[in-house]
Amino acid sequence: MREVAVIGAGMSRFGDRMDKGAAELLLEAFDEAVRSVDKGMEIKDIQMAFFGNQGVGGSQLALLAAQMVEAIGLCGIPAFRVENACSSSSFAFINAVQAVASGVCDVALAGGVEKMREISGKQVRQWMGVAGDNEWERQVGITFPGAYALAAQRHMLDFGTSREQLSMVAVKNHECGFYNPKAQLRMKITLEKALKSPIVAYPLNIFDCCPTSDGASAVIICAKEIASKYTDKAVTVLGYGAASDTISITNRKTITALKATIRAAQMAYRMAGIGPQEISFAEVHDCFTIAEIMAYEDLGFCPKGEGGKYVEAGHSRLGGMRPVNASGGLKSKGHPLGATGTAQIVEVFKQIRGEAEPERQVENNKVGLTHNAGGFGGTATVCIFGMR
Amino acid sequence: MREVAVIGAGMSRFGDRMDKGAAELLLEAFDEAVRSVDKGMEIKDIQMAFFGNQGVGGSQLALLAAQMVEAIGLCGIPAFRVENACSSSSFAFINAVQAVASGVCDVALAGGVEKMREISGKQVRQWMGVAGDNEWERQVGITFPGAYALAAQRHMLDFGTSREQLSMVAVKNHECGFYNPKAQLRMKITLEKALKSPIVAYPLNIFDCCPTSDGASAVIICAKEIASKYTDKAVTVLGYGAASDTISITNRKTITALKATIRAAQMAYRMAGIGPQEISFAEVHDCFTIAEIMAYEDLGFCPKGEGGKYVEAGHSRLGGMRPVNASGGLKSKGHPLGATGTAQIVEVFKQIRGEAEPERQVENNKVGLTHNAGGFGGTATVCIFGMR
Repeated sequence: MREVAVIGAGMSRFGDRMDKGAAELLLEAFDEAVRSVDKGMEIKDIQMAFFGNQGVGGSQLALLAAQMVEAIGLCGIPAFRVENACSSSSFAFINAVQAVASGVCDVALAGGVEKMREISGKQVRQWMGVAGDNEWERQVGITFPGAYALAAQRHMLDFGTSREQLSMVAVKNHECGFYNPKAQLRMKITLEKALKSPIVAYPLNIFDCCPTSDGASAVIICAKEIASKYTDKAVTVLGYGAASDTISITNRKTITALKATIRAAQMAYRMAGIGPQEISFAEVHDCFTIAEIMAYEDLGFCPKGEGGKYVEAGHSRLGGMRPVNASGGLKSKGHPLGATGTAQIVEVFKQIRGEAEPERQVENNKVGLTHNAGGFGGTATVCIFGMR
Repeated sequence: MREVAVIGAGMSRFGDRMDKGAAELLLEAFDEAVRSVDKGMEIKDIQMAFFGNQGVGGSQLALLAAQMVEAIGLCGIPAFRVENACSSSSFAFINAVQAVASGVCDVALAGGVEKMREISGKQVRQWMGVAGDNEWERQVGITFPGAYALAAQRHMLDFGTSREQLSMVAVKNHECGFYNPKAQLRMKITLEKALKSPIVAYPLNIFDCCPTSDGASAVIICAKEIASKYTDKAVTVLGYGAASDTISITNRKTITALKATIRAAQMAYRMAGIGPQEISFAEVHDCFTIAEIMAYEDLGFCPKGEGGKYVEAGHSRLGGMRPVNASGGLKSKGHPLGATGTAQIVEVFKQIRGEAEPERQVENNKVGLTHNAGGFGGTATVCIFGMR
């Protein structure tokens, strides 16, 4: 396979973005991505574009890809919208990588956008809810906080994971997000505050849940053989994987692991020719604190059931053995569904190049991993990046 | 680029399909596709899946790709949903081709599905309408029949295209669809009947408009070098192209041509190394009769403005110089949005292999072209196939 590298990456500020529509948010992210290409680039070099978007709010509910390329000055090029719920833009990224790897084009754009804050909470629940199983779960009231709450209860029961360990994920991610100027919830929280916050779905408190967000992200990739034209600090795609699972959690053998994550990780590790021990840092899909704990296990960072102990031991904090979500994660940075996947890649790109804010720059930044899940793991991607 | 071939293709019957949900319709199409692989295949050979769907009705409004692979027995593999309005599944097909061409996998599935008949006409208009420009057109009442009616009026004014010529497209496509057991509207119509049918948006009558439909389609592709394992009659992807344009028609210099089609065709002809004169037959996006007339011109089958004369001369009818829409087209076969793109490829696959119903088998069937447009040409694809 032809090797592919990331040469530019940018994201909008996440959060309440009533100041901009979806197209303008994407332009904000794209502008930063283009400016980050340090030897400069003409945007007309970009030959294809792939956008992730679930379609929660925003003005253009279909054919969004065409609107997006027009907004960023690339009207005319092939543009694809990919919808795989919360993992939409990492799947869009994989399509972009495959386009460049196939040789049909040399430079491509992958990005994502979502506007969730302009519609009511009830509408957001409806629109997000459609990524859940329609027949057996959604219509009887299982929302995503409910599903992850069940997973947390089972994890606590089976493995002795504690309520405190869940909150430790939140405290850690808010600590990082505080130093990230793009993050939505920039505040440090104490373990006590997290533990005492109102319950959403037992055992998950408000501080176990990521917020709803507006935001966009954009990543420019090219064939590795021409990357030096654009930058001497290209970040190579070492491997990637993707997988699916039943949407319905009722049909699964376990709810304390996401099989799609496990499968995607296997594919990505195999392609990269490395194992979890060689991952220096990661951005994982912490839509809920329990999701991050499960991700440690599913990605092979620790044995099954030991995710709670892993965070308690400090292995995943900044300065720990393998920092996770130095961006603040979905929890503090925010989670505009369609933008999250490529936003994780933006973070890994910055970290590997040593360009994150000093307070949250990861020290061992050689190999970074992104993990992005859709629904309750109905889909998942894992991508591995490094400079080589 | 690694060459890619179609080894199997199938589609559900299009039309009122209250008997099946989206997943079951896709299974119907997939089953036929697998059975069409004449040397046989194990479905577990399929490594990735790409589905087109706009999301008009159906039970699973997000994360549909995961539901689809589960329904067809492939739960676990990477599955992507692509939404580019009416051109969704041809864009999904291009992603699949690029995946195989990149070398990441050898066998992939592209398909599409839509359920439009279970919701009310008003809901269908709302859901289809969201592929139109939101800010300047949709909200002031321009629906797709309205937009294409404007195009037809302008085409008549600028080029002398007649009301009769529009209807000749309908008569021709219904003639073919009558012999297609998968078609929704299996009836021959007379020119008089078409001309006297009720007006939808002047000058477009009811017989100038395609119906709303339920349906699914599926295409199995593989690296050409391994195709002989599955069939001795593989149909090669000779070239493909895709493009975008402004969604808003207000912003265009002309409404009598779709620039996205012109661009996509240029890319496809260049990749295939042939020109329009070498196309033996085609499936084009005749959502409205005027759209087919514009497609003749945009694809280079005839000079600009002469599309009306082209159909009148019989060049595009069965037995003519270059048959167009021998399947019945969207007009008679039906138009389940997300299924249309790959359904066109199903037809070309059958025609090239000489496997269409005798009454509608194209005689010169060497090189077939598909043309699929999204919205009012906000996106478009052109793919070229042949046996070589």
